[in-house]
Parts: sequence; C-alpha cells; structure tokens
Amino acid sequence: MATVGFVGLGQMGAAMAANLIKGGHTLNVYDINKDAVAALQGQGAKACGSPAETAEGAEFVITMLPNGALVRNVLLGEDGVVSRLSKDALVIDMSTIHPLETDALIADLAKDGYQMMEAPVGRTSDHAIAGTLLILAGGTKEQIAKAQPLFDLMGSDTVDAGGPGKGIRVKIINNYMSIALNVLSAEAIALAEKIGLDFDTAMSVMGGTPAGKGHFTTTWPNKVLAGNLDPAFMVDLAHKDLGIALDLANQVGVPIPMGAASREIYNISRTAGRGRQDWTAVLEQLRELSGLETKAK
Amino acid sequence: MATVGFVGLGQMGAAMAANLIKGGHTLNVYDINKDAVAALQGQGAKACGSPAETAEGAEFVITMLPNGALVRNVLLGEDGVVSRLSKDALVIDMSTIHPLETDALIADLAKDGYQMMEAPVGRTSDHAIAGTLLILAGGTKEQIAKAQPLFDLMGSDTVDAGGPGKGIRVKIINNYMSIALNVLSAEAIALAEKIGLDFDTAMSVMGGTPAGKGHFTTTWPNKVLAGNLDPAFMVDLAHKDLGIALDLANQVGVPIPMGAASREIYNISRTAGRGRQDWTAVLEQLRELSGLETKAK
Amino acid sequence: MATVGFVGLGQMGAAMAANLIKGGHTLNVYDINKDAVAALQGQGAKACGSPAETAEGAEFVITMLPNGALVRNVLLGEDGVVSRLSKDALVIDMSTIHPLETDALIADLAKDGYQMMEAPVGRTSDHAIAGTLLILAGGTKEQIAKAQPLFDLMGSDTVDAGGPGKGIRVKIINNYMSIALNVLSAEAIALAEKIGLDFDTAMSVMGGTPAGKGHFTTTWPNKVLAGNLDPAFMVDLAHKDLGIALDLANQVGVPIPMGAASREIYNISRTAGRGRQDWTAVLEQLRELSGLETKAK
Amino acid sequence: MATVGFVGLGQMGAAMAANLIKGGHTLNVYDINKDAVAALQGQGAKACGSPAETAEGAEFVITMLPNGALVRNVLLGEDGVVSRLSKDALVIDMSTIHPLETDALIADLAKDGYQMMEAPVGRTSDHAIAGTLLILAGGTKEQIAKAQPLFDLMGSDTVDAGGPGKGIRVKIINNYMSIALNVLSAEAIALAEKIGLDFDTAMSVMGGTPAGKGHFTTTWPNKVLAGNLDPAFMVDLAHKDLGIALDLANQVGVPIPMGAASREIYNISRTAGRGRQDWTAVLEQLRELSGLETKAK
Repeated sequence: MATVGFVGLGQMGAAMAANLIKGGHTLNVYDINKDAVAALQGQGAKACGSPAETAEGAEFVITMLPNGALVRNVLLGEDGVVSRLSKDALVIDMSTIHPLETDALIADLAKDGYQMMEAPVGRTSDHAIAGTLLILAGGTKEQIAKAQPLFDLMGSDTVDAGGPGKGIRVKIINNYMSIALNVLSAEAIALAEKIGLDFDTAMSVMGGTPAGKGHFTTTWPNKVLAGNLDPAFMVDLAHKDLGIALDLANQVGVPIPMGAASREIYNISRTAGRGRQDWTAVLEQLRELSGLETKAK
Repeated sequence: MATVGFVGLGQMGAAMAANLIKGGHTLNVYDINKDAVAALQGQGAKACGSPAETAEGAEFVITMLPNGALVRNVLLGEDGVVSRLSKDALVIDMSTIHPLETDALIADLAKDGYQMMEAPVGRTSDHAIAGTLLILAGGTKEQIAKAQPLFDLMGSDTVDAGGPGKGIRVKIINNYMSIALNVLSAEAIALAEKIGLDFDTAMSVMGGTPAGKGHFTTTWPNKVLAGNLDPAFMVDLAHKDLGIALDLANQVGVPIPMGAASREIYNISRTAGRGRQDWTAVLEQLRELSGLETKAK
Repeated sequence: MATVGFVGLGQMGAAMAANLIKGGHTLNVYDINKDAVAALQGQGAKACGSPAETAEGAEFVITMLPNGALVRNVLLGEDGVVSRLSKDALVIDMSTIHPLETDALIADLAKDGYQMMEAPVGRTSDHAIAGTLLILAGGTKEQIAKAQPLFDLMGSDTVDAGGPGKGIRVKIINNYMSIALNVLSAEAIALAEKIGLDFDTAMSVMGGTPAGKGHFTTTWPNKVLAGNLDPAFMVDLAHKDLGIALDLANQVGVPIPMGAASREIYNISRTAGRGRQDWTAVLEQLRELSGLETKAK
Repeated sequence: MATVGFVGLGQMGAAMAANLIKGGHTLNVYDINKDAVAALQGQGAKACGSPAETAEGAEFVITMLPNGALVRNVLLGEDGVVSRLSKDALVIDMSTIHPLETDALIADLAKDGYQMMEAPVGRTSDHAIAGTLLILAGGTKEQIAKAQPLFDLMGSDTVDAGGPGKGIRVKIINNYMSIALNVLSAEAIALAEKIGLDFDTAMSVMGGTPAGKGHFTTTWPNKVLAGNLDPAFMVDLAHKDLGIALDLANQVGVPIPMGAASREIYNISRTAGRGRQDWTAVLEQLRELSGLETKAK
C-alpha cells in the first residue's frame, strides 16, 4: 500500500480519492474548498495545508483540476507539489487539459528530474463513485504498470494510449467527436421535427444506418480504411443529397450550420477530383488538407 | 399478379425491376438507355417506347430516377405516364428527390384524379439485387397495403413513415445525418492522426462512448428526450473541451470546420442561459432557433 | 421609337416600364396582378392578356420576374412569349435568377432561332423610379448596342459584363459579397457592443482600415493581385489575431460563425505552407481549392 | 523630455523606440535579441540587462511584444519591470494581446499601486518608421494626456477608445473584421473567376455597392442604426439570392464556407420573424443571440 498525494477534490476527484482510501492507501489531500477536504478527512485522509504538503512521503501525487493553468500552479507554483516531491515519486495528472500544456508540464518536471504521466478519465461522476471509470493512460509502460493498482481502484478499464501525452490526446479526440456530434444530432432531429417526423420514426430508419450507428464500424472499414475508394455511394451523390437537405432546411427554417460546413468539404473533394470516389474519401481529403499522408489510391 | 410500369433502369432500378419479374409480375419498362431496356427485355419485360406506354394496362407505375425534374417530366411531360394512366393505378416514386417536389407531384396528380405515393429506398445496389432493400413508404395506409406485395419483392423491410411525403422526408433526414457525420468523423480521425494517434487507439476509446455509438441511444433518452436537463455533463464544460480541440487543431494544422460551426451553437446556448444545463440541451436550443416547441424545463 | 413587350410589373418592373413609356416607346404589358396592369394602362401602355400577346409586333420583350421558373414559363410555357415572337426581336431578362437557368434559356431560345440577352439591375426601387438603375448587361456587343436606348431610359449606368450570361454572373457575385458581408459586419458590431464599444468608436478605427474600406482597393492591389506575397501582414499573425477574437467572442457569448469558418481557411493556408506569406494569399489558397490557376509565387 | 523604458525591439518596436529617441527622450531598452539592442544603442539608447533595468528612473515603460504571456512575464516575472518601477511611472502596453489578459495585467499592477494603460497600434512597419502609426489608446483621460507626447512621436493619429481596456478591444474588433473580410473577399473573387469574370469586371460593379464599400456607411446608417427596419431589400430576398450563389458555387466547385455560414444567420432571422424586415436586421438578430438589447422595432 502506498502514500498518495491528491490535489483537487471536486465531484470527480473526491470520489476517486475515496476509492483509493477504501483500497487501503494512505491519502494526503488538498483542495481550496475546506469542506471537500474535511469530507475526505472523515474517510481517513490526512488534510494538508498546501499542494506541497501532499507530496511529503508520497509515491504518487494525483491532480484532478479544472484547467491547465491550475495544474501548473499546483505542481510548479508557490508551495507547489515539486517543492517537496521525491524523485522516485510519480505525478499523475488526471485532469482534462490542453495536450500541449500536458507536454510542457511533463517536460518541465523532467528537466528537474521529476516524473509525470497523465491519465484523464472517461464516463461520469456515478462511475467515479463506483470505481468504474475509463482510464486513458498516457505514459511509459513502466509508469502505467506502476500506477495500475491505483487505476484499478478508480476505474474498471485502462487504455494504454501509446505513450506520454497520448492519454490526454485520445481524451480530447473522443470529446471532440462526441461534443460536436451532439450538435449534429440536434440539427437532424430539429429538422425531422420541423418537417413532421417524430423521433421514433427517424430512429426506426437511422438506427439501422450509419446515421445512427456511425461510420467507424460500418462504411469505413472496407473502404477508406482499407485503401479502397471504389464507390458504394459516390461523393457526387452524397453532395447532391446534402444539397437537398440544406435547401429543405432553409425553406422550412431550421438552422443546420454543421451541415452547411460539411457540404463545403464535399465541394472541395469534388474539385479535387474525388466526385466519383466512395464517400468515405472525405477522410483522404481531410488528410490532404492536414498535410497528412493519404493512404488510398 | 399485376402489370407494373417501371421507368428508370439504372443500377438500382434494373435490379428492382428484375425482382418484380421473378416475383411473377408483368413489367412494362422504359429508360433512355436502350441497353438497359434490352437487358430487362431479356428477362421477360416488355420494352416500351415512352413513359406513357409503360402505363398501358398497369396497376402500378414505379419511377426510379436521378432527380425531381426527371420524375416530373416522366410523369407529366410529353408522352408522360399520366397521359395513359388509369385512375385506379398507383404511381410509386422510389427516387430520392426533394421532398417539396414530391409533395407538388402528389398534389398535381391528385388534381386530375391520379394516385401517387413515394417509397425511396435505403441500403446499396447489392441489396437491390438481393431484394433486401429498406423501403421507406410514404403514403396512406391503403396505398402502402396495396403496394406491399411489390415492396416485399424488392426489399426485406418496409417502414411506414407516417403518411404521404413522410417516406422521402425520413430518407432525406437519414441521408443528411449520415452524409454530414461522415465529414465529422473524418475531422476527428484526421486530427487524431496528426497528433500521433492511430485509428485503433482512437476506436478503443470512441467505441465505448457517444463519439462512436452516437447520442440517440446513449445520452439523449434519459435527458433531453425525457425532458430532463439536469447536467450529467454541462454545456459549459462541453464548450470548454471543444475550445481545447479547436485550439489544438488550429495549432497543428487540421481543418475542422464542422467543429468550428458546432462551437457557435454551444456559444448561443450559453448566452441563452443553458450553460449549466445538460449538454443534450443543444437539441432544445435548435428547436428554439427553428421555431419549434421546446419540451424540457 | 420601338414597341416593347414587358412582363412583370412589380415594384421594380412597373417603374422601369413607366420610364420606357415616358421615353416615347409603345409598351405591351402583362402581369398576373390586374391592378398593376391597370396602373400602367393609365400611363399609356397596352394591357395584354398573356405573355404571348406582349410579343405581338414587339422589337423587344423584357421580363422582370421573381425567379427562373417563372421566366421560363413566361417565355416558353403555354401562351408564352416565343409563341408570337419575331425572330428579329430581342428578349431581355432583367430578373435576378440562377445563372445556369439564364444560360439554359438563352440556349433553348437560340435552338429555335430566337435571341435573348440578360440585363439584371442594381440599386433600389427609388432608382428604378428615377431611371438611375445600374444595368448589368450580358449579351453580344450587338445586342447591348441595340438595347442601349432602353437601358438609358431605365438606368444611368450600363456595365458590359463581357458576354452572354456574364451580366447575371456579376450580379450574383455582387449580391453574394454584399449579402454575406452584411452578416460579417453584424458579427463584428455585436461583438464590439458586447465588449463595451459603441458603433462610433468602432467606426473611428475601422473607417480608416480594410475593416471598413474593404480589401479590393487597399491591401490586395499591390500584393496578391500583383503576384506579390511578401508579407506586409503574415497569414500566421492574421490566424493568431483571429484566434484571439474567436476566443473572446466565445468567452463573452457572441456567436461569430463566419469568423469561425474563416479561421479554417487560414488554418488550411498555413498547412499548405502559406504561414509566412502575406495575408492576401488566402485568395491564392481559395483559387487552389477551386481548381483555378494560382498567380503568385 | 522623459526617460522611457522600452521592452520589445522587433520590426515595429525598434522603429517606435527610434522615433522616441529622435524626439529627444532618454531610452532604456531591452530585448532578448542582442543585435536589436545593439542597433538601438547605436542610436543613443541605453542597453539594459533585464526588463527590470529599463524601469530604473523611467517615467514610462513601453512593452511591444508578441503575446500576452510574454507581456506578463516581462512585467511581473523574475527581474520584471515592476521590481524597479516607480509608482509615479506609467506602463504602456502597445502589443496586440488578448483583451482579458490586458484587463488582468492592469488589475494586477493596480493591486500593488502601479499604473498601466494599453495602446496597441494600427497600420504597418512602414508607418512605424515614419512615425505615422494609428494609436488606439485605452486608459483614463489623465493617462492618455500624459502619454500623448510619446504617441505623437510614434503615430500621426490617436483614438481615445473610451477607457482602460478599450484600446485593445477596438484593435481586436478591427482586426477581426479585416481578417475575416479578407477570406470573404477571396471567396467572392474565386467564385467570380471560376464563372468567367475577371477582377476588373467584378470591381466595376462592386466598387459602387456595399459589396465593395461595406455596409457601415451605406446601408446601415438609415436603417438598422436608425432603428428603421422598413425594407429597402428584404431579408427573404437576401436569403434567396444567397441561396443561388451557394448553389452556383457548389455546382462549379468553389468552396465558400463563410457564405454557407452566413446563410444560416439569415435562416435563423427568417424563423425569428424577420423575413420581411430590411436585410440590415441581421444586426438585430445577432444582438438578440448575443444577449444584447435590440434597438429597432
């Protein structure tokens, strides 16, 4: 059993720290919210007066904070964690922050011989309480192995994202996709409702197509991901149908700005000569615009 | 067994017509492509010299054409279907055209006492050949019942979309969602690749979240669809995380125009007072911008 | 003095027809609105019962209608203009319609030996009354010369747009730019107001910069239009400042979707290697995405 | 004549500092680029070893740096300006940084009794050399009056933006408008070129309309700015014409993402009941979406 410093006892952090205590670890906790500290103290944690103090004798220091500036301040600011951190200890940032801030923090700590990895989490506060979070681990194999016993108390699944900084990157990608998709879904359903369809009717169709199931496991695997752009459904036809939807939405008065933006990518793809390729070729087009290697031909 | 006129023998139409012949029906076929007509003739169809001729003695006339102007011309133009159509016959447009054109055609035929319904199809040309299309039927209960034996030969599933014009509407909604989602998926994966993640790592996470599974069956049912906007994940946090992704994409050079457009809807939602509501509240916001009744409070 | 058929007596058309009468021409007028016809009749026009009738003995037939479908119907539909049109007459469509519809109408009339040009107008209904419209003439030199006496009665300036179909094209470009710019201007001023600036303060600055004066006559002539991309202001810096504005707008709650869309073009430009080029290089980037020849190096 | 600390001797800063020397002031200069410091030293400046040193005996300290983090570090970091700053001195940040960073810096300095204003500049490095910059002064009346002699050496025009933080705000608004407008202009000209118009023809029309002249001084003053939404050109018609342009651009293959985004604002405006208002009503619509008071009725 280890001594673990824990800074950041919000809805998520408090639950995660509690599970580490239940697992038998010794917890040094800190938060600017004194009530949150007291609550953990009641569960057996040691209350600390500063981030620095949580690092006293700790093998791990975990941070779970709202943004990167706070993480930096907690680690490197006045009375910060590193001022009393052992060079054998492992700092684990479990916050969701900007990946370039994560990179900079890992590098800044490494300059002085300190070790840090990141492990942002997925799922909800209910999962935090139940100890069934999804842990997106970014670190060396050794760091992840060392932290695994803690992860197993806080979560039910750990993904090794592929190295330092990759955990926060996969978290941001996942959030990007789900947060933007939420709006696109709302555009589709608002349009459906405005033209007289109800959610159940729309779902009776979309539940069986990429509209509801997504493309990652349906249209993409045998096409663009396999380097095959022979058309099952041509870019030109997708562009045409999208034009009908945009015209309809503008006639009935439903704003669909994401759809409008997406058409311009089909537009660019057609001008680039992809009109008769499979519609999954838009991935190739975005790779090209991103300076990435394209994979199909 | 019925006599069926069929106009439009492209990749989809030819396969659908062939299945009607195999089912025992008498087919009168027409297409501007003489080879396509000859191929069907070889399977037992009667070749016609005009759309009008396909309507001779027919109980049904099916159209399967690239756009609404062509459907209108085939039905109402010179030597068009209605010039020899029986008032007992049922015209079934199975093309994907603009819903307002469908409405206009149904109304124009009705003025002269002719009956028309629409039944656009889902799935691919392979399904057309196998007779396993998805039929999105828009018509009266009687029309759908009458056409059902034909649908059963061309498809394996028929959805009653809820009335005349609703079949083409649900088709357009489905296509809208899947066509735009294709681009959003490409934005996410291009960004993932540019920051050093591969598809499999991204999928190991997204496969278990709304990013991969969509929102319709995950985050929405107990929240916005149930009229409950208590936050599992707040609009403010979604907006913040989206901002990180946009900043990152702009730093590493991956264009994500759909994500950029989606952030402005969160922006509008926050200004409208929804910052601390559940992120699924963006549906409510789009309903409001669309002049639809909002449902939650 | 000529006999002129005139179809379409709305706010604009009625004023234009009146000026032709005042100029001494004989007018045959038609509109579905009987009051509008009667008003012109009171000014000396001959009221006609159909578009066809306006063409009787006419050297010119002018159409001024809300959309392309109506123009087509008035010219080529039942009792349409061409049914009584002389092959020596010149049809002039002055409506704002889709350029591809204009092209198709000119071609369809030409097939039967009829002549048509287009001449959409700029400015307002006040200018229509005063006879000071801007005439955007699309036709052969001969057609424009022939119509010039009529244009001089309706407008104060005629632009020869460079050939058949070019008049409507330049009209659409002008409208595109001004209609979209209207929204961009509103984004900027709403943001200014939200952060505590008033219109006059904003204008005291923008009145002297490309923000208020536009780029066509300020930043572009010596840079991208001259094939010179040496940076007076780098794409990278423009991208950075735009990022500040987007962040600010999202912090204070002002939606700026056009700004968000524009950043992605700078983003694409930077990935394409244009970061240290002059900001006017975005024209080159859009040319490239449009399949046009780029001009600078 | 005063002693002036100056930190940041880039292309702009070096020229501005040189003009202060020519004006008779004593300059203490610092930059991480030693060559830039040496060049100013050759013109009579005193070279300093740190930002702090520039503040020794200085009545003014001017910063001209690439971003807000650097400004903060130069002022408040190790060996920063405030460590040797007189409480009678005035710090003037002339950089273009995030307005909320400007606010925070002014507040942080004020806490310890130090005075700061901002005065970002407009125009180019040629104007910096000529001493004809546009100075966007954000500060109290007293601060601006005190700094005016320096501004008069660096610039030819000073705008009092209305108080502390307003100078950087008007700068960001101006840049927002001009940077986004640059892309919109490129969309219009790329589309013009793709449909066969040259720049001169497009300009012969746009030079005389809001497309080229902007809306601030043409369509807005008598309409939305005067609280008058009686239509000179209706939102509905602007929406229609924009739809033609978008359709055309998508048919000929020119991406116009900003135009696509702008249409959705007209779309929202129409649903909100503004279809028959003057097109300048989009400002009212954006005010509404921004939580600002609308002004017309």
